[in-house]
Amino acid sequence: MPGPRQPVELREFDEPDLPPGGMLLRTLFSEVCGTDVHLWHGRLAGVPYPIIPGHVSIGTLAKARGEVTGADGRTLKEGDRIVFYDVHRACGRCYACSVSGTPTKCPSRKVYGITDAAADGLFGGWSEAIYLEPGVVAAVLPKAVAAEDYMGGGCGLITAVHAIDRAAIRLADRVMVQGTGAVGLSIIALARLSGASTIIAIGAPADRLALATQMGADLTIDVTATSPEERRALVMDETDGRGPDIGIEASGSPHAVEEGLSLVRDGGRYVIAGHYTNAGASLINVHEQINRKHLEIRGCWGSEAGHFLRALSVLERYAGGIPFRAIGAKTYALDELNQALADAEAMRLPKALVEPHRRAH
Amino acid sequence: MPGPRQPVELREFDEPDLPPGGMLLRTLFSEVCGTDVHLWHGRLAGVPYPIIPGHVSIGTLAKARGEVTGADGRTLKEGDRIVFYDVHRACGRCYACSVSGTPTKCPSRKVYGITDAAADGLFGGWSEAIYLEPGVVAAVLPKAVAAEDYMGGGCGLITAVHAIDRAAIRLADRVMVQGTGAVGLSIIALARLSGASTIIAIGAPADRLALATQMGADLTIDVTATSPEERRALVMDETDGRGPDIGIEASGSPHAVEEGLSLVRDGGRYVIAGHYTNAGASLINVHEQINRKHLEIRGCWGSEAGHFLRALSVLERYAGGIPFRAIGAKTYALDELNQALADAEAMRLPKALVEPHRRAH
Amino acid sequence: MPGPRQPVELREFDEPDLPPGGMLLRTLFSEVCGTDVHLWHGRLAGVPYPIIPGHVSIGTLAKARGEVTGADGRTLKEGDRIVFYDVHRACGRCYACSVSGTPTKCPSRKVYGITDAAADGLFGGWSEAIYLEPGVVAAVLPKAVAAEDYMGGGCGLITAVHAIDRAAIRLADRVMVQGTGAVGLSIIALARLSGASTIIAIGAPADRLALATQMGADLTIDVTATSPEERRALVMDETDGRGPDIGIEASGSPHAVEEGLSLVRDGGRYVIAGHYTNAGASLINVHEQINRKHLEIRGCWGSEAGHFLRALSVLERYAGGIPFRAIGAKTYALDELNQALADAEAMRLPKALVEPHRRAH
Amino acid sequence: MPGPRQPVELREFDEPDLPPGGMLLRTLFSEVCGTDVHLWHGRLAGVPYPIIPGHVSIGTLAKARGEVTGADGRTLKEGDRIVFYDVHRACGRCYACSVSGTPTKCPSRKVYGITDAAADGLFGGWSEAIYLEPGVVAAVLPKAVAAEDYMGGGCGLITAVHAIDRAAIRLADRVMVQGTGAVGLSIIALARLSGASTIIAIGAPADRLALATQMGADLTIDVTATSPEERRALVMDETDGRGPDIGIEASGSPHAVEEGLSLVRDGGRYVIAGHYTNAGASLINVHEQINRKHLEIRGCWGSEAGHFLRALSVLERYAGGIPFRAIGAKTYALDELNQALADAEAMRLPKALVEPHRRAH
Repeated sequence: MPGPRQPVELREFDEPDLPPGGMLLRTLFSEVCGTDVHLWHGRLAGVPYPIIPGHVSIGTLAKARGEVTGADGRTLKEGDRIVFYDVHRACGRCYACSVSGTPTKCPSRKVYGITDAAADGLFGGWSEAIYLEPGVVAAVLPKAVAAEDYMGGGCGLITAVHAIDRAAIRLADRVMVQGTGAVGLSIIALARLSGASTIIAIGAPADRLALATQMGADLTIDVTATSPEERRALVMDETDGRGPDIGIEASGSPHAVEEGLSLVRDGGRYVIAGHYTNAGASLINVHEQINRKHLEIRGCWGSEAGHFLRALSVLERYAGGIPFRAIGAKTYALDELNQALADAEAMRLPKALVEPHRRAH
Repeated sequence: MPGPRQPVELREFDEPDLPPGGMLLRTLFSEVCGTDVHLWHGRLAGVPYPIIPGHVSIGTLAKARGEVTGADGRTLKEGDRIVFYDVHRACGRCYACSVSGTPTKCPSRKVYGITDAAADGLFGGWSEAIYLEPGVVAAVLPKAVAAEDYMGGGCGLITAVHAIDRAAIRLADRVMVQGTGAVGLSIIALARLSGASTIIAIGAPADRLALATQMGADLTIDVTATSPEERRALVMDETDGRGPDIGIEASGSPHAVEEGLSLVRDGGRYVIAGHYTNAGASLINVHEQINRKHLEIRGCWGSEAGHFLRALSVLERYAGGIPFRAIGAKTYALDELNQALADAEAMRLPKALVEPHRRAH
Repeated sequence: MPGPRQPVELREFDEPDLPPGGMLLRTLFSEVCGTDVHLWHGRLAGVPYPIIPGHVSIGTLAKARGEVTGADGRTLKEGDRIVFYDVHRACGRCYACSVSGTPTKCPSRKVYGITDAAADGLFGGWSEAIYLEPGVVAAVLPKAVAAEDYMGGGCGLITAVHAIDRAAIRLADRVMVQGTGAVGLSIIALARLSGASTIIAIGAPADRLALATQMGADLTIDVTATSPEERRALVMDETDGRGPDIGIEASGSPHAVEEGLSLVRDGGRYVIAGHYTNAGASLINVHEQINRKHLEIRGCWGSEAGHFLRALSVLERYAGGIPFRAIGAKTYALDELNQALADAEAMRLPKALVEPHRRAH
Repeated sequence: MPGPRQPVELREFDEPDLPPGGMLLRTLFSEVCGTDVHLWHGRLAGVPYPIIPGHVSIGTLAKARGEVTGADGRTLKEGDRIVFYDVHRACGRCYACSVSGTPTKCPSRKVYGITDAAADGLFGGWSEAIYLEPGVVAAVLPKAVAAEDYMGGGCGLITAVHAIDRAAIRLADRVMVQGTGAVGLSIIALARLSGASTIIAIGAPADRLALATQMGADLTIDVTATSPEERRALVMDETDGRGPDIGIEASGSPHAVEEGLSLVRDGGRYVIAGHYTNAGASLINVHEQINRKHLEIRGCWGSEAGHFLRALSVLERYAGGIPFRAIGAKTYALDELNQALADAEAMRLPKALVEPHRRAH
């Protein structure tokens, strides 16, 4: 991706010299997600264009310099299916890392395929090979998990683990999820696993709502086919007139937040996970929607290495029963990336997968 | 108070027949606070006018039917200085009480001087006598505490204990308090006791800011004499450019919330305790002010019996060193209540005290 | 039950006069659980023998004085299948209720069939009729739930909801449950619902371990057929050598606690829910088992109304997929209660059910 | 320190070559604390003797390679009074760091003067110079803080910040601290700052109890001059017969834990911070002391960079009013270290300071 709003091009790079602890992966799959659409429009800060996008990927270990261990302490071997956490270089010792509890705000933090420059190496997954710096959190994908399920979950699943942590669902809570993109769909699946009694999904279009049902939603509401009053009636009907215990926003819409705060019950919790870019302001009556309701609202920014590792544990135990691969059902060749971006932007699919070794033309 | 916006009148009532466990207090002091101003304007829901206001009061025990025990299990004796929690009749078994963790939203809950009708008895403190129903949480004011300090803290102190609980200050946190009325001033004192390293108070007018300093603020900012940019500069200067760890809103202004969310640091916590009535909407950019900051926002509605009892413990140990009585520095006679209401509304004092046994004319 | 270690007798009582808000149920089922065995041995404090035991029960509404509402605010109707929370009269305003956060330690608290005297009315479920005092938390059993599933869960399920709350399982945590009685089996089911990745059950005998597997355990270990070293090896093997993230004790054995603290991982959490009576001391090396491991240990005593109501929500949504009724698989007639007690004591079944309207002889 | 139980010797080392980001300090003070006594006895694991002890120290910046920034992002300058966190090299990406929430258990973690070998450089503070590796968390000591107060607090203060975090004191809680060594004394001071209403210190000898009073204890109890029954009576008398809300153990004695669990109130919290080495087992009745009390127990192991930085904030704001320097009241020359160790072991002082540039002989 040479720059904002320029077509993606194929380029060749020399194989990097590996430092001790460095690795080279042969990419199996990478993804095109909503973040890549933002990236292409130039909406993200700190991006060193030109850049090789593709922040969540899987590859086989082609080469490692010295003995390199995964997050579980075991040595990684050639041919292993390696997955890795796209965020790295958080320092662990600045104020953000050590006092604020916000390692996702560490100034040293870099993200593969988003804020790591191509000049530094083959950092993104839209490439036949990925260079893993020493210190990147890497793991072998558990045997029970298909690469397609890992990629279908992808970055949305890792974000969803963080959002579910912030939501702190109690057994038998009623949960409302706003947004049925890749993040929202994974949140629905994880809310189901967390023992929610009722899950209400509000989103669009129809095929994503069908997918939401497959992920575990008990009720789906098409946001494009209902009025706010109709949605309120449907949600209250499903929650004994009290509203859901927990609301999780994964839509990116300022109106969703206005509506969500009104729907959540007194003393409930509302997690905001979808406002990754600036979509404008929300009009919130603090008396009616926060103070008098004794509400708790939690922003949820990015993710940490622990969320990545726990996403792997979830997949290892539960991937068999959850259609994660359906989130990334369509796969593109390396020379079809502009089409993949266009399809993602038009919301023709929640997420596109890329097979960098394949060429369509 | 015969009805909204009607002058307060003096009326006589028969002494009530006490049921077993009931008590009659001879009122020493009651208060006129901001809530009473709202009450007088008819801004509160569920008020059964005519009503005897005065929700926080102190009196000596004049009569009790049978042996009545205080919250600590000890028998109350005639002549004891009795203080009591104005909220009663929360059922403890409905959904709000037992599942939601919001006993302040229990439908059975009543508040002395606000939602308890005069017809039921002498419920408010703007009266020579107060009838305490069986089941009201009552306690003897500790000897070390002057009645004036208890009343100066009053309802604001109990609300402040709740707000401080919601704020969950960690030792050495920097705390910003918006609003320097009775609630804000008590929050400043309690934040100091809780080990805040720096306390910034934003409010007005000048005499309340001087009081804020006495209560423990390190820096005071006059909201009427500064621009938002100047306030931001002052706050950032005091917090190494990061913003306070904790913000507590006790002003009731929609603009204060907009400003407060922008000032609190990444990963910080913001408590909304001042929006007791509807003052209009706030314009909040959820991306910039909540999600990207990974913020936590907590509404704080009303209080519970435990906050009342812990306020007494705070006073017993610390009242000597904190000028609580200065919050309610001016005392009115029973026939000066209309003047007291007018002075409270004009913000001539954070809170007025009433001595019901005194007559000015 | 005339007194400790005396045979249970059949007695007749007059129908009580109902006060306003009182109800009379025609008992469908009650239970004989481990607590009743302790009760019969005289091991519990505050029991006013003679007593009608049976603390968790279900009945149809036979009579109500006035309009009585359930916990959800709806009016209860004759013939409704009523379930109710056995604990009542907690005052909500003493130090235990309002400051300590321990309503289960309120001095006014009474428990149907355990600390409520027969002289006060028909309080226990080992009876054809149950008198519900005004103020008891009652609800209609959701239509989707069979009475046998409600009773199979019974008091163990309510305790399990509390234990699961205290355990605060994070998605993908590995959970070890010690004890496979009625409480332990329900905890296993709820841990599965809460998104545990691996559940290890340690208990006995073989038929309960088989039931543990049905409730959701991934690995069961027979405590009577393994050495501590073998158990350690099995648990570590299942948890990558680190030990489980969460341990929940529901066995009542002092040795289980010693072993459990050693097995839980560094920084893990250990909930003690099984020591309802005094079974002697545990020898704990605080350096090795708590401090150096940075462990968190939480006692879990009794339950609160919210746990009862949330247990109903769990049953409504999930009872279809969990074999709760298998926990109380055997049903006894009213004149077989001595046999039921003997079978419960001999651990021939996790829990016995009683049908008070049936006679065997 | 050539090895366990061998006299400390003076040795000379070459000045190390600084890598980019490395620094050399001229030591002003270091400390001899209880850990150094354990170190000398060979009771700690992973110590690479010979070693230069002295884990908490202060020095002036003598030399830095390149521009080096402190934890607050500002450039450190020659002559600055530098303090630093003795723990370093925690990886931030292993299971202990990223999933368990136990960075203090990271296998890569090293501690200056304890587990860092002398062969790697001048790591301990019992030396004229200290080599700071790149990545060590360093900060300029705030101007308002005397070096003697920083050192008097020292490692005990950092541990105390961690213990106070784990204790999660609520405003007006009653706090019992067991142990009046360097850690216990700092905990008393921090509990006072955190708004405890009553602080009870149990320890010995008399001069430390006097110091406990100066740090903020309301009641001190000499553990060597009282029976367990007398201590129970004193503690209950001070806490309305309920016991303290919070207990913090900083004594290292297995009996203290047995006693402390019995004294803390129902629903209270008990933090174990003093069992840094193995002093044998405690006999704990789990029914009586944990389960029936609904207690919470938290181990507290080591500390993290955030505790160090927040200790600096506490000192900056409050050192003026707290006699931290009295904890380390006696200073030794570099050639008096064997005497300092002997005095520390004999408990003649809570902590000894060392001035490495001074020679007594």
